[in-house]
Amino acid sequence: MNAPARVTIKDVAARAGVSKGAVSLAFNRKPGVSESTRERIFEAARDLGWAPNQTARSLSSRRADIIGLVLCRPARLLGLEPFYMDFISGIEGVLAERSCSLLLRLARDTGEETELYTSWWRNRTIAGAVLVDFQEDDPRVPALQAIGLPAVAVGHPSLTGPVFPAVWTDDATATAEAVRYLAALGHRRLARVGGPAGLGHSAIRAAAFEATVRELGLEAGQQVTTGFDGKEGARATRSLLLSPDRPTAVIYDNDIMAVAGAGVAAEMGFVVPDDVSLLAWDDSQLCRITHPTLSAMSHDVHQFGAEVARALFALLEGEHIGSLQVPTPTLTPRGSTARAPR
Amino acid sequence: MNAPARVTIKDVAARAGVSKGAVSLAFNRKPGVSESTRERIFEAARDLGWAPNQTARSLSSRRADIIGLVLCRPARLLGLEPFYMDFISGIEGVLAERSCSLLLRLARDTGEETELYTSWWRNRTIAGAVLVDFQEDDPRVPALQAIGLPAVAVGHPSLTGPVFPAVWTDDATATAEAVRYLAALGHRRLARVGGPAGLGHSAIRAAAFEATVRELGLEAGQQVTTGFDGKEGARATRSLLLSPDRPTAVIYDNDIMAVAGAGVAAEMGFVVPDDVSLLAWDDSQLCRITHPTLSAMSHDVHQFGAEVARALFALLEGEHIGSLQVPTPTLTPRGSTARAPR
Repeated sequence: MNAPARVTIKDVAARAGVSKGAVSLAFNRKPGVSESTRERIFEAARDLGWAPNQTARSLSSRRADIIGLVLCRPARLLGLEPFYMDFISGIEGVLAERSCSLLLRLARDTGEETELYTSWWRNRTIAGAVLVDFQEDDPRVPALQAIGLPAVAVGHPSLTGPVFPAVWTDDATATAEAVRYLAALGHRRLARVGGPAGLGHSAIRAAAFEATVRELGLEAGQQVTTGFDGKEGARATRSLLLSPDRPTAVIYDNDIMAVAGAGVAAEMGFVVPDDVSLLAWDDSQLCRITHPTLSAMSHDVHQFGAEVARALFALLEGEHIGSLQVPTPTLTPRGSTARAPR
Repeated sequence: MNAPARVTIKDVAARAGVSKGAVSLAFNRKPGVSESTRERIFEAARDLGWAPNQTARSLSSRRADIIGLVLCRPARLLGLEPFYMDFISGIEGVLAERSCSLLLRLARDTGEETELYTSWWRNRTIAGAVLVDFQEDDPRVPALQAIGLPAVAVGHPSLTGPVFPAVWTDDATATAEAVRYLAALGHRRLARVGGPAGLGHSAIRAAAFEATVRELGLEAGQQVTTGFDGKEGARATRSLLLSPDRPTAVIYDNDIMAVAGAGVAAEMGFVVPDDVSLLAWDDSQLCRITHPTLSAMSHDVHQFGAEVARALFALLEGEHIGSLQVPTPTLTPRGSTARAPR
């Protein structure tokens, strides 16, 4: 299988009857060439089978234009999580600006994930990677440091270690704000429906919830761990609303569980927010289209993904980057929270 | 930049003190090696920087293990569409079984999309592609046929043409069933909140809606085109419920618009389903967690993605595959549809 004879930008320029600079302008979508010239250039490139940066990419063994992302979870679950689609869309937006693509793969466990990154890196498939879902003492850190993979770690620096630049959001402060807000509305008995116990950011939120509840002298609040999906959010809410020490306010770790919680409350005859206040997290458009609308700890997940991609490009371009804190989620009060009953 | 000296499966076997067959069993997760041996093999492979199939992959210029998917839409919008995350998760599930990854990219228009596929194919980046969002007389078909890209087309064969095997779902029959169901409940004035007019499957559903409404002698039903997102679904519903010839039942082209529609109905004081029936499409878990739960034309989008990936592998393995029809969406009645008022 021989590669086709290499076509250069010069051939494209000659065929379109323009300068090499004009071809470059057209492909970089910069001003300076008319629409009709641009079309002629694209046509010439198509006829010759030429694509921009082909030469540069061949030289670097194609390392420059692909970023890897391995997600460790069952395929079915991925489709249920609004967070990841929004996060990936933020990464993709920045990648597209730089003519880069995302290589996406699901893995069963962090061992398989590490093998994948190692294989991609050694086979020169990817230029760098985005690491997510950090656990305490994450085994990926030493393994991927050893092979020299350039990567950005999404998570609190205490979890991701000093090896990879971290992009993180202050979950502890945001959790404390959520608890304080509900306490200020007169709620004394709060609950939290959180993510999996093994995930670092769930542990951070759980600790902050407990500390703030204690600090404010509220009743000890129940915390339920889930796998982030709507069905589990519904089950957790049902169990909380049936319990003898029923909470008057519930904080959810994402938005789909809060929507499920609102559904369960309505089904059980509780009026939101008169009988029970519900506070979501992440704040996708889901929170704005339900009735009542859902109060949320707003977090621009798309922008978060974009910042992660930008940090990775800075790293790949040789900048010395440290950890980067993106904005802390902020409270957006809407229709699902109100003063505590009675 | 020289490639590191090539490590073979033999080196790994020697270092771990096992046979080559044992290394192969361990990496293919097959029985026959104990847990501790497997660990020792993985450690040896890690120490040597060896990954399974590296040799085979090098020989085929890495074409064998990456599949391309270009989506033509703004990055922000992608994060809002449950359909694509579910569809991609279905593809990823099958890809992971075969140690393949998905190369994902956003494009501004079909011209850029065609350039991307051309570049990926000519640069030997991908083994094949999944083409989605077909329009009538889609310009991608002749362009990608010309370069010989192996691809599966997601859409009705009338849109995708005879070049690429189509994987499709019978939107016309499902739309007719939706209309017939609502008519059987006594509804005479239906509306449909659809996707963008330019998309082939939206056009097919629009035509089927109109034809079935006429056939059953119902009042001419309003149809609104949207960009599939919740905000537009809310706006369309508000406008329909305010119109002098207010429909008593509304069919939505996806689930997030139906959730938004339910929110708007509640906000305007209409009781679902007593005053107005709402019927969603695609039926993600969203439809099961709201209150009332949403009746839907159920369609296993995850499975759809998996079938698309399987068809592509069959094509790549040299099978002669024709078009493949996946199951037609079926009606799942839940709490949001009921007999027409009065």
